[in-house]
Amino acid sequence: MEAMTFVLFGATGDLAKRKIYPALYNLFIDHKLPAEFSVFGLGRKEIADVDFQASVRESLAQFSRRPADGERVESFLRAFRYSALNVNNTEDYQKLLSAVEIREKELGIPENRMFYLSVAPEFFGTIAHHIHENGLGAGKGWRRLIIEKPFGHDLESARALHQQLSKAFTEEEIYRIDHYLGKPMIQNLEVLGYSNPVLQALWTNRYIANVQITANELVGVEERAAYFDQTGTIRDMFQNHMLQILMMVTMHLPQRSTPEEVQSKKRTIVESLRPMSKEEVGSQIVRGQYTAGMNGSVPVQGYLDEHGVAPDSTNDTYVAGRIWIDTPFWNDVPFYIRTGKRTHEKSTKIVIEFKEPLKISTEANQDEAEPNLLTIEINPMESITLKLNTRNAGKGGKIEPVLMNFTTNSKDAPEAYENLIHDALRGDATFFAHWDEVELSWKWIQPALEAFEENLIPLHTYAAGTNGPKAAHDLLAEDGFKWW
Amino acid sequence: MEAMTFVLFGATGDLAKRKIYPALYNLFIDHKLPAEFSVFGLGRKEIADVDFQASVRESLAQFSRRPADGERVESFLRAFRYSALNVNNTEDYQKLLSAVEIREKELGIPENRMFYLSVAPEFFGTIAHHIHENGLGAGKGWRRLIIEKPFGHDLESARALHQQLSKAFTEEEIYRIDHYLGKPMIQNLEVLGYSNPVLQALWTNRYIANVQITANELVGVEERAAYFDQTGTIRDMFQNHMLQILMMVTMHLPQRSTPEEVQSKKRTIVESLRPMSKEEVGSQIVRGQYTAGMNGSVPVQGYLDEHGVAPDSTNDTYVAGRIWIDTPFWNDVPFYIRTGKRTHEKSTKIVIEFKEPLKISTEANQDEAEPNLLTIEINPMESITLKLNTRNAGKGGKIEPVLMNFTTNSKDAPEAYENLIHDALRGDATFFAHWDEVELSWKWIQPALEAFEENLIPLHTYAAGTNGPKAAHDLLAEDGFKWW
Repeated sequence: MEAMTFVLFGATGDLAKRKIYPALYNLFIDHKLPAEFSVFGLGRKEIADVDFQASVRESLAQFSRRPADGERVESFLRAFRYSALNVNNTEDYQKLLSAVEIREKELGIPENRMFYLSVAPEFFGTIAHHIHENGLGAGKGWRRLIIEKPFGHDLESARALHQQLSKAFTEEEIYRIDHYLGKPMIQNLEVLGYSNPVLQALWTNRYIANVQITANELVGVEERAAYFDQTGTIRDMFQNHMLQILMMVTMHLPQRSTPEEVQSKKRTIVESLRPMSKEEVGSQIVRGQYTAGMNGSVPVQGYLDEHGVAPDSTNDTYVAGRIWIDTPFWNDVPFYIRTGKRTHEKSTKIVIEFKEPLKISTEANQDEAEPNLLTIEINPMESITLKLNTRNAGKGGKIEPVLMNFTTNSKDAPEAYENLIHDALRGDATFFAHWDEVELSWKWIQPALEAFEENLIPLHTYAAGTNGPKAAHDLLAEDGFKWW
Repeated sequence: MEAMTFVLFGATGDLAKRKIYPALYNLFIDHKLPAEFSVFGLGRKEIADVDFQASVRESLAQFSRRPADGERVESFLRAFRYSALNVNNTEDYQKLLSAVEIREKELGIPENRMFYLSVAPEFFGTIAHHIHENGLGAGKGWRRLIIEKPFGHDLESARALHQQLSKAFTEEEIYRIDHYLGKPMIQNLEVLGYSNPVLQALWTNRYIANVQITANELVGVEERAAYFDQTGTIRDMFQNHMLQILMMVTMHLPQRSTPEEVQSKKRTIVESLRPMSKEEVGSQIVRGQYTAGMNGSVPVQGYLDEHGVAPDSTNDTYVAGRIWIDTPFWNDVPFYIRTGKRTHEKSTKIVIEFKEPLKISTEANQDEAEPNLLTIEINPMESITLKLNTRNAGKGGKIEPVLMNFTTNSKDAPEAYENLIHDALRGDATFFAHWDEVELSWKWIQPALEAFEENLIPLHTYAAGTNGPKAAHDLLAEDGFKWW
């Protein structure tokens, strides 16, 4: 791996402390950082290098999955420098450039520079512009940009942002983090298909009745209420994470592929999402908002009573949808997606429901076989479970479902941010969101955004701690299915 | 279930004590015997009813899977009577008939009679003849015959036996026990296919590379040496149990079927076994005999030193074979079957090896995915295991095989003889060997019997406690496979 400089905007922010420093440190321990590297933390405040290093040390003590102590952590921290930077101030960028160059010379490393914008998205454009204008990305080595959602607020704003970024970085240089793509079980989806002929054979509309993707949370809006009330679950979860999982499940990779091949397959999927008109949203998408209820045994308030939420807000805390993919592989297979806050459990999973077994004789006391299910649990457990029907010898040959299960021991596995930062440093874009995917996702979902804003479809309520609004269950019942 | 009389020839024999009485008793506990029933035990010796009942009580104490005590066992034993019978003596059959009729009248039950010949096979013909001649099977109810292998010694003797039996019983009245067909996991094979669309989809030569059926034993010939030395593994295991398992794995049942449909499917398989000429046996079948070695940590003698074995015996204690089934479903799929005594482990299992995953890129450090395997363990464990390839997030995304497993808790499950006797009493022949299957199995294997007898093929040796002769491994290596 080539030596490089890691330039972190938002170095005093929460994400940096909780995720980015621990990720870098654990990569360092695993020898997954270059032998020589330099880190520049940037923020508004003036901070001395030594104080910055101390704050990183503290973050590691609190958030690293492995202990951060002794010479190991000191050796890691020696790479860290801090520069104060006002994102609109050209001089600050110039100062940064010369500091970076001095370090590069000190360390004798090439001018490879990774710019990580861990800042509010309204600054993405400005920072990219200044990086470009001030020649920070004009060194002899590579330059790359890491940003994280939201990539715009709707199709138009996403395109505007993309235009700004494009003036400073090519698409190949931009690594858009969707941290769901860093989760081990999601990354496994790429491998499961092509390395398992038995799954490959089954992965089509010939055998699959429907696919269900769930990302349910126990938590409510917490301290993000003001932001969330302008965003909603449809932007916060559905347009990005949920559609990314959908792409990962449905792309058919012929073998371990290049990032370009993966992007091409994902693009094919998102291009093939059957478009919805604003009038059709009501029949395909369910919008929900939680009311007062329980979080476990603790009573919790409704969304409208949360601090920071407008008292007459029609914002969505729950979205369920039915999606069709118009390709030969997936024709006629409904994809059901649901994601909500303050539901009865924390669970991210994919359930593949296979077509019904052939009907067994109609004798009255005959048992009905249940559908085969393949369940891929992503969070909080990581597991794969196949539900089969077998004959129970102890019950007179009654046909009963049994579960074949494999659970990952991911105790020692790298966290999503480790995987993703490592990939970006290696220049591997396999598990990042390409602009095409982002744009096409916004395009597909735009009619729903408008229908939500214009209140064209009902806002269903559900009590906190329940399994979402009834309408989400009716959506599947219409097709003769149920959520698993 | 209709009341009936159970007429047991060989009532003082080992099988009766170990298997038949415990099976009847456990069926009785489970209310799977008719409300009224009568049992007649027959043997050469004169025994008083009360002594016979005492000996049955003792068998139950020793061999029943559930406790046999209290009023429950006494109530069961009251159904038992004994008659001395010389199998060649017409008068004895007449005496038996009137005793049976008297009991039927006492109990007010119909003349349904189950004849169970738990005697040496040379008596099958004589007993069937006398049952017929003396009107024992001429009552107003049903009559059925249960017999157990060997059904002949070769094709000719099997046909001769069948002719004798056919004079007294129709094919529908004959229940040929192959106790492997009573094992829960073998019975499960019928159900697995039709009730699981995911397995049904995979169950063809399109996805299956080969199928391996193993029945290995730790034990040697023990006290059966003199009999076994005239029989060999090819007759004792291969022609019956192994070919029956092969039929059960490969028949495609569209749904829970009638016994006639099952028989028809099994017949199709055994009819489609690609015939072998005597000259071809050497390239398809491996013959082995164990030499001195180990049973665990205990040294054991070779086959030729076993008491009762001819010192120059060329008898087979191990047979492996490659079989082709010439049907559209199974064309080009080799079936490998092996069964031996004094191997390194006790294991009866079926392994389905699926075709290779698509080749992954040729980069030097790329991992090779292993083939998917579906393993059905029959004995001593009962389990189903699917081996898949997944991405190990803890090892930098290395592709590794993982096992998805389901193990039956068969602690309380009925034994094979319970299942089979219960089925015969209900008149359900699903899990019995039909004459067609027996005849066609003999016909297919006849060239091998002759090649063995004429010593046309090598007799490979293997040390006790090893995994069979090398030639059995070479057989698969020729095709690019290995035993799993």
